[in-house]
Amino acid sequence: MIKIVLLGGGNVAHHLAKVFIQSSEIELVQIYNRTLKNIETFNNQTTITNKISELKKADTYIISVSDNQIANISSKLNLKNKLVVHTSGAMSLDEIKSNSNKGVFYPLQSFSKNKEIDFSEVPFCLETNNTKDYNLLKKIASAIGSPFYKIDSNQRQQLHVGAVFVNNFANYMYQLGNEICKENNIPFKILMPLIKETSSKITELQPFEAQTGPAKRGDTKTINNHLKILSKNKQEIYTLLTKSIGKLYGKKL
Amino acid sequence: MIKIVLLGGGNVAHHLAKVFIQSSEIELVQIYNRTLKNIETFNNQTTITNKISELKKADTYIISVSDNQIANISSKLNLKNKLVVHTSGAMSLDEIKSNSNKGVFYPLQSFSKNKEIDFSEVPFCLETNNTKDYNLLKKIASAIGSPFYKIDSNQRQQLHVGAVFVNNFANYMYQLGNEICKENNIPFKILMPLIKETSSKITELQPFEAQTGPAKRGDTKTINNHLKILSKNKQEIYTLLTKSIGKLYGKKL
Repeated sequence: MIKIVLLGGGNVAHHLAKVFIQSSEIELVQIYNRTLKNIETFNNQTTITNKISELKKADTYIISVSDNQIANISSKLNLKNKLVVHTSGAMSLDEIKSNSNKGVFYPLQSFSKNKEIDFSEVPFCLETNNTKDYNLLKKIASAIGSPFYKIDSNQRQQLHVGAVFVNNFANYMYQLGNEICKENNIPFKILMPLIKETSSKITELQPFEAQTGPAKRGDTKTINNHLKILSKNKQEIYTLLTKSIGKLYGKKL
Repeated sequence: MIKIVLLGGGNVAHHLAKVFIQSSEIELVQIYNRTLKNIETFNNQTTITNKISELKKADTYIISVSDNQIANISSKLNLKNKLVVHTSGAMSLDEIKSNSNKGVFYPLQSFSKNKEIDFSEVPFCLETNNTKDYNLLKKIASAIGSPFYKIDSNQRQQLHVGAVFVNNFANYMYQLGNEICKENNIPFKILMPLIKETSSKITELQPFEAQTGPAKRGDTKTINNHLKILSKNKQEIYTLLTKSIGKLYGKKL
């Protein structure tokens, strides 16, 4: 059994706690959070505490708090020879300030509060200072059925930006589509099959091959028709993205 | 049986021909195309022709050709009291120049050449000049298992732009994510579960609720870190989209 102490009471910490409790290969020894109330729900399944001084012994201490709290919490830990990891995509391994071994256990997925997580669809980005610690994180990922990748701090920072594009910005494209529908009394669900197909297409094709539309074709007539009926902010976004796509396919727009 | 003559030999025409042939409620009487070679594959399943003068009798004539060819082909048709429709998202109903009844039968989906189409995932946007014709198009959509919506020419043009955002531009966000991965020796498949989750999330939440990330939070520290490591073109896109998202959530970025 891999013994884990989890520090944090937010969204990611909650999902991790649940899946650790379910796993037969993991013993979730304890959850720490400054505010007990946020972790009370786990009171019957593990020990909970709000005192750093009362942390129990474990193989790994997983800090799952907001980025700007990682340095603060980790600096209070006295865990020589133990492994302390954080779960942030944006912070480097050195953000951990404890006198312990350090690592990163970053789940590259969007977590929603009230939605069950299928951990087989959560790839973990692993980083450690030595092979022994790496193997331990590998074991934890495997124990909860998640794929894992060796990703260093520099790569992880790049991935974090990549995730902004494919998640935050793709969702914003849905938002703009939704606004267009609302403004014209069209039910948004009419666009849902297209959205689904767009995301599933790239499981078979590279995005470069999957691209379609007037920008790729260099179809200025359609582009101008579209620009005419868009509001100012959407016009600006449409123009920039159309030019960028055109450039990618050798069309000057 | 609804009798249909299909005009066109491209991607959409091919998929329509296939599904019409499969349907027990539709008789695909004939396919016309200027170049016979492109429709030869249907030779055993229906009549094919390259002569407008030899068009057979049918209930509906479906013109599925490139946008700039619709006026030209339809102007050659002499089909008084018959229904002639096009399948374009961008063209108005009046683009049909025949002396017939006019309509639009626009499948709002991305069609790939070598990929089977599940027509239950293809919503049709229907427009006609009268109820009788509308009911006929409804019947055709139902006969191939597709959902349908009454969408007028103005709404359809807006929807066509909406589709550019949720399809073309969302795919371009995947492309940018893919480029970031390639530049940093990261396998793109690590982002696939996130892409899948992002698109499936909005079946339960509105995009406005589903939005996450530094722009929504107004997290300028993370935004600046991201901008530092992006190349110029990605920087420009990141900045514009971040400002737009920020504005939507009352954050000045």
